[in-house]
Amino acid sequence: MDAYKKAGVDIEAGYKLVDEIKSLSKNNALGSFGGLFPLALGKYKNPVLVSGTDGVGTKLLIATQSGIHNTIGIDLVAMCVNDILAQGAKPLFFLDYLGIGHLDQAQAKEILTGVVAGVDQADAKLVGGETAEMPDMYDHGHYDMAGFAVGIADADDLLKPESLKKGDVLLGLASNGLHSNGFSLVRDILFKQNDYQLSDRLPGCELDIAHELLRPTKIYVKSVLPLVEQKLIQGIAHITGGGLIENVARILPAGLSAEFHLNSWQIPAVMTDLQSIGHLSLADMENTFNLGLGMVLAVRQEDAAKVKSALENAGETVYQVGQLIAGDKKVIIRED
Amino acid sequence: MDAYKKAGVDIEAGYKLVDEIKSLSKNNALGSFGGLFPLALGKYKNPVLVSGTDGVGTKLLIATQSGIHNTIGIDLVAMCVNDILAQGAKPLFFLDYLGIGHLDQAQAKEILTGVVAGVDQADAKLVGGETAEMPDMYDHGHYDMAGFAVGIADADDLLKPESLKKGDVLLGLASNGLHSNGFSLVRDILFKQNDYQLSDRLPGCELDIAHELLRPTKIYVKSVLPLVEQKLIQGIAHITGGGLIENVARILPAGLSAEFHLNSWQIPAVMTDLQSIGHLSLADMENTFNLGLGMVLAVRQEDAAKVKSALENAGETVYQVGQLIAGDKKVIIRED
Repeated sequence: MDAYKKAGVDIEAGYKLVDEIKSLSKNNALGSFGGLFPLALGKYKNPVLVSGTDGVGTKLLIATQSGIHNTIGIDLVAMCVNDILAQGAKPLFFLDYLGIGHLDQAQAKEILTGVVAGVDQADAKLVGGETAEMPDMYDHGHYDMAGFAVGIADADDLLKPESLKKGDVLLGLASNGLHSNGFSLVRDILFKQNDYQLSDRLPGCELDIAHELLRPTKIYVKSVLPLVEQKLIQGIAHITGGGLIENVARILPAGLSAEFHLNSWQIPAVMTDLQSIGHLSLADMENTFNLGLGMVLAVRQEDAAKVKSALENAGETVYQVGQLIAGDKKVIIRED
Repeated sequence: MDAYKKAGVDIEAGYKLVDEIKSLSKNNALGSFGGLFPLALGKYKNPVLVSGTDGVGTKLLIATQSGIHNTIGIDLVAMCVNDILAQGAKPLFFLDYLGIGHLDQAQAKEILTGVVAGVDQADAKLVGGETAEMPDMYDHGHYDMAGFAVGIADADDLLKPESLKKGDVLLGLASNGLHSNGFSLVRDILFKQNDYQLSDRLPGCELDIAHELLRPTKIYVKSVLPLVEQKLIQGIAHITGGGLIENVARILPAGLSAEFHLNSWQIPAVMTDLQSIGHLSLADMENTFNLGLGMVLAVRQEDAAKVKSALENAGETVYQVGQLIAGDKKVIIRED
């Protein structure tokens, strides 16, 4: 055994993993110094690259504790590509970083299976990645991940707050549960303030806590991008940490506010359960969770029915949740 | 205090940090859903995006233990952009991911100061980033980082193994010490097998152990890229984990081997110290450390003097360290 392996780093295991990823992703170029992506620019007059990086937060700890690793990679891709979509851009390629205490081949393969599935759901390409085995940095079995996605749009087609108008309709796309936000609070409520087990089932939830919490973040690219390209969508908010309040505010121009009607869509049972178990105020809920809407689209009133039905045909559950009103970049959630 | 902050996540602190980074990087667009980079494509016929992701490994633990955080970001950028340069591409932009147990504003600012400095050294632009506060994932004061860089080249100008020829000269660019590799072994030797303190000084080293180990990885973009653009360089190996042996092998075509003369350059004192303290074989050294060469360039014999002097004028220390010979993709380090 060489000195480096004795110090806890198994370079051979790393090479084997690269081979696994090549085969999973069907991209044989993986493993070179840098990932290559040829740009086909025919349709772009003034191409702009739109990039984003994100992690999945302490949702990872649920994966670690439950031993379920094959979907967290979908969350990772989703967090990045939904952000790119929210700018009106088409995700092109993705890279992942995996920092891990001990490189267990089977575990790493499970994790990367999720990444490959996510990239596929986003119609993108996995062009590179890094798996860093770091004894002493992460506890045995623990890991962190960062994702990185690059997309493209024509400069004129980027979604801008300025295109929003009073009267635009807000369509909410159903989330698949909690997605990847609020997990420090979720874990605090379920496992610190209380003594729930991952195998317990919360009232109204279909799945046990582990699977309920690990439902992978929805990737909205395939359903939403065609409508962006048809210029039927004026603005997109990807609902992540900070909830509707924070994320919808980011797309509003001066002079407009967004008004939601809380009774116009279904809040997932897992969130109302967390609210009652954790004695959360509605404000806490609104500022932390997606409340069941993973993405909010602003569309012209006259396009709303067409967009809603196109999204439903593409498999989304869509709610008309509110509209843009005169105001000062506020997000108002009405309970009536 | 809201529920989320009580659970250990301070969203306000995160916002404040975004403001700091905007001001450090002079990029006011930071903080939107995705980083924008307009592509000026005039000079590219068949543009290819070249991207890479990397971390800095357990060099981070030295930063954490010594409380010196303002250079580790340079390492992060270096690991990514030197890989892109090694393909013959020009780094365009960078994003960073910082996963941290507790968001200490001053510490995070130090860390990001390094990132901004690195991006500047690489002539690139910081277009985005993510700082994820994750109580329970990282010990207090600990953090991990991932970097992502995207560059561009014309497809025909990418460096390819096939352009290398027998007789090409290998030029080695001096490293700035250990760079960002081999740190699990370094820490094992100094702090586990032995009881060195970060304030100790190793024989022959200028700086104490903390500063010696934390010397930031050199970023070779500004000195090397102009020569790539003049087509004076046939191949580039960025010497990282796996040392000369592994990294130079990756750029060789079938039919060629690389021959180095170990006495043709200066091995940094920190490495010979580690060799004797850790009783490392020469093979361990060669497979782990850069041995003092952070980047190896293959150039035509007739261009060698010109390239060497241009690099020296740009501030590099350059050694003629070997040549390409007939062989089977082996890297041979001769001790005579």
